Amino acid sequence: MLDQLWTSIADAGRELVRGRLGSRRRATIQSLCRDLLSTKGEASGAALARELVEAYRMMTDEERQSFFTMLAQDYAADPTRILAAVEAYRQDPSPRSVQALRRACETPRHELFRRMNTAPGGTRAIVDLRRQLLAYLPDRPDLEPVDADLHDLLTGWFNPGFLTLTRIDWNSPASLLEKFLRYEKVHKMRALEDLKRRLAADRRCFAFFHPALPDEPLIFVEVALVTGMADRIQPLIDPEAPVGDPESADAAIFYSINNCLEGLRGVTLGNFLIKLVVADLAREFPDLKTYATLSPVPGFSAWLRQALADSGNKVIAAADRKLLAALDRPGWHREPETVEKLKGVLCRLCAHYLVREKRSGRPRDPVARFHLGNGARLERINWLGDVSAKGLEESFGLLVNYKYDTGQIERNHELYTNTGEVVISSAVKGLLPAQAG
Amino acid sequence: MLDQLWTSIADAGRELVRGRLGSRRRATIQSLCRDLLSTKGEASGAALARELVEAYRMMTDEERQSFFTMLAQDYAADPTRILAAVEAYRQDPSPRSVQALRRACETPRHELFRRMNTAPGGTRAIVDLRRQLLAYLPDRPDLEPVDADLHDLLTGWFNPGFLTLTRIDWNSPASLLEKFLRYEKVHKMRALEDLKRRLAADRRCFAFFHPALPDEPLIFVEVALVTGMADRIQPLIDPEAPVGDPESADAAIFYSINNCLEGLRGVTLGNFLIKLVVADLAREFPDLKTYATLSPVPGFSAWLRQALADSGNKVIAAADRKLLAALDRPGWHREPETVEKLKGVLCRLCAHYLVREKRSGRPRDPVARFHLGNGARLERINWLGDVSAKGLEESFGLLVNYKYDTGQIERNHELYTNTGEVVISSAVKGLLPAQAG
Amino acid sequence: MLDQLWTSIADAGRELVRGRLGSRRRATIQSLCRDLLSTKGEASGAALARELVEAYRMMTDEERQSFFTMLAQDYAADPTRILAAVEAYRQDPSPRSVQALRRACETPRHELFRRMNTAPGGTRAIVDLRRQLLAYLPDRPDLEPVDADLHDLLTGWFNPGFLTLTRIDWNSPASLLEKFLRYEKVHKMRALEDLKRRLAADRRCFAFFHPALPDEPLIFVEVALVTGMADRIQPLIDPEAPVGDPESADAAIFYSINNCLEGLRGVTLGNFLIKLVVADLAREFPDLKTYATLSPVPGFSAWLRQALADSGNKVIAAADRKLLAALDRPGWHREPETVEKLKGVLCRLCAHYLVREKRSGRPRDPVARFHLGNGARLERINWLGDVSAKGLEESFGLLVNYKYDTGQIERNHELYTNTGEVVISSAVKGLLPAQAG
Amino acid sequence: MLDQLWTSIADAGRELVRGRLGSRRRATIQSLCRDLLSTKGEASGAALARELVEAYRMMTDEERQSFFTMLAQDYAADPTRILAAVEAYRQDPSPRSVQALRRACETPRHELFRRMNTAPGGTRAIVDLRRQLLAYLPDRPDLEPVDADLHDLLTGWFNPGFLTLTRIDWNSPASLLEKFLRYEKVHKMRALEDLKRRLAADRRCFAFFHPALPDEPLIFVEVALVTGMADRIQPLIDPEAPVGDPESADAAIFYSINNCLEGLRGVTLGNFLIKLVVADLAREFPDLKTYATLSPVPGFSAWLRQALADSGNKVIAAADRKLLAALDRPGWHREPETVEKLKGVLCRLCAHYLVREKRSGRPRDPVARFHLGNGARLERINWLGDVSAKGLEESFGLLVNYKYDTGQIERNHELYTNTGEVVISSAVKGLLPAQAG
Repeated sequence: MLDQLWTSIADAGRELVRGRLGSRRRATIQSLCRDLLSTKGEASGAALARELVEAYRMMTDEERQSFFTMLAQDYAADPTRILAAVEAYRQDPSPRSVQALRRACETPRHELFRRMNTAPGGTRAIVDLRRQLLAYLPDRPDLEPVDADLHDLLTGWFNPGFLTLTRIDWNSPASLLEKFLRYEKVHKMRALEDLKRRLAADRRCFAFFHPALPDEPLIFVEVALVTGMADRIQPLIDPEAPVGDPESADAAIFYSINNCLEGLRGVTLGNFLIKLVVADLAREFPDLKTYATLSPVPGFSAWLRQALADSGNKVIAAADRKLLAALDRPGWHREPETVEKLKGVLCRLCAHYLVREKRSGRPRDPVARFHLGNGARLERINWLGDVSAKGLEESFGLLVNYKYDTGQIERNHELYTNTGEVVISSAVKGLLPAQAG
Repeated sequence: MLDQLWTSIADAGRELVRGRLGSRRRATIQSLCRDLLSTKGEASGAALARELVEAYRMMTDEERQSFFTMLAQDYAADPTRILAAVEAYRQDPSPRSVQALRRACETPRHELFRRMNTAPGGTRAIVDLRRQLLAYLPDRPDLEPVDADLHDLLTGWFNPGFLTLTRIDWNSPASLLEKFLRYEKVHKMRALEDLKRRLAADRRCFAFFHPALPDEPLIFVEVALVTGMADRIQPLIDPEAPVGDPESADAAIFYSINNCLEGLRGVTLGNFLIKLVVADLAREFPDLKTYATLSPVPGFSAWLRQALADSGNKVIAAADRKLLAALDRPGWHREPETVEKLKGVLCRLCAHYLVREKRSGRPRDPVARFHLGNGARLERINWLGDVSAKGLEESFGLLVNYKYDTGQIERNHELYTNTGEVVISSAVKGLLPAQAG
Repeated sequence: MLDQLWTSIADAGRELVRGRLGSRRRATIQSLCRDLLSTKGEASGAALARELVEAYRMMTDEERQSFFTMLAQDYAADPTRILAAVEAYRQDPSPRSVQALRRACETPRHELFRRMNTAPGGTRAIVDLRRQLLAYLPDRPDLEPVDADLHDLLTGWFNPGFLTLTRIDWNSPASLLEKFLRYEKVHKMRALEDLKRRLAADRRCFAFFHPALPDEPLIFVEVALVTGMADRIQPLIDPEAPVGDPESADAAIFYSINNCLEGLRGVTLGNFLIKLVVADLAREFPDLKTYATLSPVPGFSAWLRQALADSGNKVIAAADRKLLAALDRPGWHREPETVEKLKGVLCRLCAHYLVREKRSGRPRDPVARFHLGNGARLERINWLGDVSAKGLEESFGLLVNYKYDTGQIERNHELYTNTGEVVISSAVKGLLPAQAG
Repeated sequence: MLDQLWTSIADAGRELVRGRLGSRRRATIQSLCRDLLSTKGEASGAALARELVEAYRMMTDEERQSFFTMLAQDYAADPTRILAAVEAYRQDPSPRSVQALRRACETPRHELFRRMNTAPGGTRAIVDLRRQLLAYLPDRPDLEPVDADLHDLLTGWFNPGFLTLTRIDWNSPASLLEKFLRYEKVHKMRALEDLKRRLAADRRCFAFFHPALPDEPLIFVEVALVTGMADRIQPLIDPEAPVGDPESADAAIFYSINNCLEGLRGVTLGNFLIKLVVADLAREFPDLKTYATLSPVPGFSAWLRQALADSGNKVIAAADRKLLAALDRPGWHREPETVEKLKGVLCRLCAHYLVREKRSGRPRDPVARFHLGNGARLERINWLGDVSAKGLEESFGLLVNYKYDTGQIERNHELYTNTGEVVISSAVKGLLPAQAG
């Protein structure tokens, strides 16, 4: 019923606006934004907001850039007001003055976006707007303040307390499942039939949804309920794999996690999702003993190729360099002898890459950063875990298990956060060369 | 399914926390809040949040006051950080510096509440917490900064874009209808049977809901679909009144608007609700010509009694003072002669009260402020519009129509906002004595 | 969605029929019925069925009687066809001939009702039609064959396999709960507030629904989860009674069972309902030890007064006759001494009435017949179990527990069905006077 | 909730039965059926029914045949009872005697199936049982009486008044859509992606469901909303075809109708489905002018090949025989010249086949029988309407439009039913050779 009402109100809103505009031509974006922030916006907010959302939708690329430029330039905080508030704070450093100063520092864009959100489909429009803004950012650093405001707002709106965790299965609407097909980037699917296997009795798929975007998964995780900590991905996603009995499983393997909406980049949801899913699985299957991921190492091959290209790099022994030359040979992973020779050296280098190659004190590998930051432990490196073209391309077929041990998460997270130390199993430790100093 | 999951996660969360606490005694509130804001909070946020919500629920009045005091004192913004940010801003008044200054002015409470919200039932707990805080405020002005933060957060979270407008009818769950019975303060009901009449074919009831509080109406409005602008409330709410045909109605009378959650005080929703409902009714019943309220004048009798007590008050003529003495006689409204005599003077005084008695440039009467602020026009004053004990007590039985004329709302609102001028009909104008100057 | 479609189809159907009728006057009922059974009925069945349903709804009492008379006379089985089929069967007593004979014995009414059922709301109309027919039956035995057909059809359609067992609680729609209020005849309620207590945590209410009548409970049972086999009704239905913890209950007391639709008289559903509810409760509360009713003895006082009036009746001893005279004194149940004296004699006579007063080999009391026929055991007779006006009136305040012991139901039922023997507890046995022979 | 209850009851039922069976070995099917029909069945019907359903499910093919044999032999009507009832009827041919005779002719199987239906999943089991029975029938004519009873019961239970018409779209559960994929036999699909196109804005798919089989479509129809009466199928089902605007369509083309459950063979639903869908579409799209099918002619090529083989057949002229030899050449339909030559002769022969080739006074072609029996008119024969392998195989690529003209349906149906006359358009008439006599 709700949806119906919104639509009708939308229509009504449109009529109101049309009436309002009377004979003058279509409002310019500038005047629309101005009106929406003025007392007119208070009186007929939803109607103006709707008009702005529609106007945005129909913008050309060029118009969109102008619109963002306008937001950056004309809707920044007012320096005069800030300075006055600073002065008032100096005179009387009371909570009230702090609040006034904070408000002076808040950009009018903030309020503009809040009012825009009252349009039917407003939240969706704003998430979309940020997606497009992010695409411009590399070339338009001047738009960063606009993005900062959007990130701020969206972080507040997508507070995990407002999200709903939903289990997806084969009874879900086809139109929804289609989106999972599209958003799955880690281990791609060709058709809904592939997805069906991933929703069978020994698999689970959970997604976060926000009430304002009821048909849009925000992030989802795919889990396999199996025996033992899985070391290869192909058996898990093979559409023809026999379906096991989830009741007899002792391990839950998180084999794919995907963020869906580019417009929510940087709004952290994955941390929460994993922990809720662990809690939910623990309740449904009390016999589960292991919660672990089977994760890609997306940056490994790029790093290794770079290291190989740098003749001064000392991490790779000269003997290993020779061996590694085999990696340039297509199909090396199907040559038993080569595979045998490469296993040791690649696993060792991967351990080094994950544990010791850092940027700003954090692991260079983004997937490692995510799970270690969540309090997981780097548990195992799996040789030929993913022999798909993508797996060979990005990590020479290696996959990694990060283990989520409920009793250790908090300790691991604190250690990692405070010292940057990567918590690893003794098996991984065994792969690392002794470190000087 | 969602609810089920939350509960299970809640339970799981509880287990996690219990495990975490190990042998040490139950966490004190202080340490709970500290942990929730620390890296521990990042790792096991939902579990700690849940514990805090539960701890809060079990607090005694005294403990609650200490908790609020702690929030006010220990979770304020850090002056050192503010001053440093101010200095940085002076050096480089870039958008980035503005943002940093704004963040420095944001209290840690803000983030604490945001994390608390991730608990199951978190939003409900925070709305409830504010309700209790508001009760302390009159005696504890030092807690106002805490309330300011809560108001800020709730205003963001309860953005109208996130609310759902729902029509309530006799097929709604009894447990929900019971709440409407309880929250109806303007024209009270004794039992669900009374409510049934208000949900019949020629009546409408619409409420706003928030997805995080799916069983709690936030605000609701009751509408009668009748012929002509109604001037008396009793026929509209009489449980025995015959049910009319809504299709033949030409007027929609908003005869009761109620805010439900004290914890959302000051979070404006009514403005939006009325306009959405107008739009929805216009769509369902294209023949409706008039949208108007039938509203109480809650401050009238208090003001009049005060004015009568003040012998220097010149608004009331000496002759009128004599007439008005009859108001002290119980049952005066059932004496035809008295009624005849009082009608003129009371209507005139009421018009004066609504239009000219102001505080800070706005009408003294709160209902008038609300509707005029929304862009409505003061249309008519109705003699003996509400002869219930409450109606006689608060306004000597007078009721008022505020008219919502879609084409005029924006103009009215601007005039009112910019100049404080009350837009009135010529009928009301006729009641006002000529004004000197 | 379905409902919407039916309505539209209904409308479409109406249009079709109107078009079809062209200029001739509204079809008479006779021709409508004839058309519906003819090839026309095959082509535009739903439209004609709809017209018949509407025509029926608008009939006066007199027209309805004529309609029933027509059904009885003109839509009986055809004797010529029966005799021919009998002859064919004699010639060749094959299964095919049996089937042909059966079909010859089926009245055209049967098919007429089946086609009528295809109208929107058809099932409801037929149930209603039977309700009205039943009201005529006492004076119109000639209509009994029509009722026999309806009973037949409805028994098939309301096969328990098609019913849904639904738990009713305070979250159910108010419009539905209102019906429970109306249909509750055993222990009446005044308002929805009374019902609320009967739906609290330590109570259960289950109803059967049929998909074609989704808003009509067919039969429902109210259960109290308590400690020990309850012996008094007032504490169970007192709206102010404190709510107990269902988890700690050891007995489920079925204290009210009501058939809702008079048009389904004789279509047995209660048997199934009780057993499904026992199974459901056993699953939800594994600690329940006792499943028993707390039932009225609706025929007791009528039988006793008759027996008292008959001076030749030997069941009542002369001394008892004197004591029983006190029953004519209003308020006797509030006189401690009288109560003391009457207890023994009334309990003994009630035991006699329930166990030995029979008609056609079955207990005279309808409630006893129902529960004993279901395989329950007559467990206990409770003195002053129901001191409401109704309770005193119909059974001098006595209530009875029938016990459903899962392991014994089948045996009890067989004994009762085959021999008419009433299975009783030793306590009840103790109340019965030794029987001669 | 319902489903949950059934399962629990099912489980409870199983426990009851297990307890009941005590130490004796698993009940034989014979004794189970006997018990279910006895007083035991009255007492613990659902539990026994459940056991029977489960036992049936686990039967081997051989056991199933024995079971059916038993039903045919041991559960037939009792001749003694029939003859007694015949005698009673002769003595007193009252309605009551007719009813008694009818009951005597009803087999105990009837009641056995009714009781079996009370098991959870009972209806599904019985539909399935009939499916398997039908597979035996060709070789086991002795089982026909069992099938006659099942057909009887299912016809009553699947009365159109109990079915729900549901529109299927891309938001329907994937698990449900998968069934449409499987049940579509007329124009097969390869994957859900094909189905997606058939559910787009300018297509409609409607299905009948029965409440006892909520996840099983019984029959469904696929409709294309297009401009003009469609003459070719490929554009309608091409997954890549552009989606049109349904509002601008003037014709609704029923291009595929499929029965889903073999166990419901002979239970007529299609007639109703088409008429409800016509009514629903007429309501949604008042501008639709034409309602017609685009139907296969499944028997045409078989008939024609037979006629060609029969040198004495006079319907085919000698010259035509020569032309038709081209049909043996694979790919003939892609040779423009051949196509040109064959068009006339094949269309004429198809018209002849549809209109004049009859069996028992009805057209030989099953699809023709269905639509003509529903009151449609044979409107047009479309050359190369279906050039798929199946289309060429069964009708040399011809498709037919049957037109549903609301105002004519009843007349057409009557004519067809009473005289066997096929109602045809003048275009089709033009194709028919003048008939002698």
